[in-house]
Amino acid sequence: MDVGGKHYHSIWVGPGETPHVNIIDQTLLPHKFVVAELHTLEDAIRAIFDMQVRGAPLIGATGAFGLYLALKVAPSDEGLTSAYNQLLASRPTAVNLRWALDKIKAPLMALPEDKRVSMALQMASEICATDVEMCAAMGEHGLRIIAALHASKCQRGDENPVVNILTHCNAGWIATVDWGTALAPVYKAHAAGIPVHVWVDETRPRNQGAYLTTWELDQQGVPHTLIVDNAGGHLMQKGLVDVCIVGTDRTTGSGDVCNKIGTYLKALAAFDNGVPFYVAAPSPSIDWTISDGLADIPIEQRSRDEVSQLNGITSSGIQETVQIVPDHIQIRNDAFDTTPAKFITGLITERGVCGASKAELASLFPELASAGASLQ
Amino acid sequence: MDVGGKHYHSIWVGPGETPHVNIIDQTLLPHKFVVAELHTLEDAIRAIFDMQVRGAPLIGATGAFGLYLALKVAPSDEGLTSAYNQLLASRPTAVNLRWALDKIKAPLMALPEDKRVSMALQMASEICATDVEMCAAMGEHGLRIIAALHASKCQRGDENPVVNILTHCNAGWIATVDWGTALAPVYKAHAAGIPVHVWVDETRPRNQGAYLTTWELDQQGVPHTLIVDNAGGHLMQKGLVDVCIVGTDRTTGSGDVCNKIGTYLKALAAFDNGVPFYVAAPSPSIDWTISDGLADIPIEQRSRDEVSQLNGITSSGIQETVQIVPDHIQIRNDAFDTTPAKFITGLITERGVCGASKAELASLFPELASAGASLQ
Repeated sequence: MDVGGKHYHSIWVGPGETPHVNIIDQTLLPHKFVVAELHTLEDAIRAIFDMQVRGAPLIGATGAFGLYLALKVAPSDEGLTSAYNQLLASRPTAVNLRWALDKIKAPLMALPEDKRVSMALQMASEICATDVEMCAAMGEHGLRIIAALHASKCQRGDENPVVNILTHCNAGWIATVDWGTALAPVYKAHAAGIPVHVWVDETRPRNQGAYLTTWELDQQGVPHTLIVDNAGGHLMQKGLVDVCIVGTDRTTGSGDVCNKIGTYLKALAAFDNGVPFYVAAPSPSIDWTISDGLADIPIEQRSRDEVSQLNGITSSGIQETVQIVPDHIQIRNDAFDTTPAKFITGLITERGVCGASKAELASLFPELASAGASLQ
Repeated sequence: MDVGGKHYHSIWVGPGETPHVNIIDQTLLPHKFVVAELHTLEDAIRAIFDMQVRGAPLIGATGAFGLYLALKVAPSDEGLTSAYNQLLASRPTAVNLRWALDKIKAPLMALPEDKRVSMALQMASEICATDVEMCAAMGEHGLRIIAALHASKCQRGDENPVVNILTHCNAGWIATVDWGTALAPVYKAHAAGIPVHVWVDETRPRNQGAYLTTWELDQQGVPHTLIVDNAGGHLMQKGLVDVCIVGTDRTTGSGDVCNKIGTYLKALAAFDNGVPFYVAAPSPSIDWTISDGLADIPIEQRSRDEVSQLNGITSSGIQETVQIVPDHIQIRNDAFDTTPAKFITGLITERGVCGASKAELASLFPELASAGASLQ
């Protein structure tokens, strides 16, 4: 998508035969647009852990490039295995990271050491290309949901048939390589001339909605309004939300969705108010080996600083971090929650939209479902 | 309750025959404890609108003192009526303000002008004394709920029979004159030696949980943990919340509760997880003239700055406001939402605990219910 009118991916390689990797440093948005360079495995791990890159699909892509960067220095079996393990540990909840690392580790192991670097670069690049394709496909499938809502508003004679979409966190193009997951349908609808408006959940504690989603919607010219996380239920009660679309960090084979903390609360409100609740779930986000999301998905607990400190611009224009509670106040910071499948209207996948159930997922992805079942 | 070991009310009069009014400036907590003086009607209105005082009961008490301050300058019928109207408009959602103003306006009107100032002072002081009594009574009734939860945890052989209470916003002693509404049962339980722990919702956008609830629990030595508003549902799913207790800005005669934005989302999560959800609702918070909270309660929309700006302490120890999104980003800021009665386990009133229904409320407050019915 566009930044300042220029097309960007969220991750790309620099020039040369064995190039470095470039990312947009997402910890500085929306205040500064800075491209950071990753030269080593450690750079990649730090970028994932510190959330310079975030979003399940982009974490997967960065993990793949991290293996490539590791192999430039240590192309041995030990080097590959060690890099794989370190990358896997950098964020425990998103399953795309494991998916991407697994996809390239075995083929690389099968190669002689001197062929590994170039193959790793090629495979990581392929993962990125696949991600762009999958996101574009989810966009097309989700576009039909938005188009149908628009048509029904027009049919009802609604004076202002704008489709109001609520989203949580950032599942936009900078959470992926391009297009986004939850926002891909929004961008496709906007491009198709359907009037859309996005309610953007601030998404405490890290404010990905306030910092990132408003930034990228603004760059693409999509109308949007920032709200606090507390507000979505009230807006649904008042009939101001037509559909919720969110992303996922890990989807179980039975359709439970583990996503940014607070997603579950929005799903409950949507259910109570008859608002359709969709999750954009590309197949790499699906963990076919588990079925009970609440019991089986590890929830990452992150630093208290994410809650107690906030970054912004002072009245004199300086970027500054302020602390909102004293050091001695106890804080707990769970990064994700699990939305049970029963509250989910549908999953938007790259192969189409399906119900959040084992049977419907298996009918769209029979080969993955049966492979997963054998691993259980 | 205590501040630095010294007993305080949240509002009190200064020395002298026609004293000024003192408040704790709540916009500066937890960073600074500052007592502000109100000398005029305008001071009182500003204190309410700018939320130097907040919390439905304390807004009511401040409104009453505002009438007193107005009469010191303009004790005429016109002066009284004008002050009444200006105070009433300062915050539209909390019904305690109207309750307090109505309680003293008619008796004052019936007096000769030269008797009004001293009577207004006396009646405002009585409203404060009544508030303290009501809060203490709610504390005793709510204490029994917490004691029962503790007993059942002990009976089950729970190794750590601490009662985990989730609260939203600040309905503590600084939202009232003393004791608090939702937190009164917590203070009573703590004083009775029952082990309690409070999950404190940050409560964006104004962070009353982070700034005020942690501060007052800390001052009284009650164990607590700050969480973001997104986290409560997840904690309930994980069995880490035994009961929710919140306050109310306006309760309908049928038990719908209008409270700080986000309350509804917590009620939905409590309902979904079988966690009891109580609302501490003193009778002055009950609007007997309405029964449909969603349709009939006006929801205050407040400034975008409350969402876009945050106040804290920089690393160099300076109190600073930072802006988290650019000026051109559109923001909507609804201050309250409505929780339908069906999601509420019970209302903790000064006369006891009852179900959130017209019949149960009327059986506790027959005289108020019938007076309200005649106004509908």
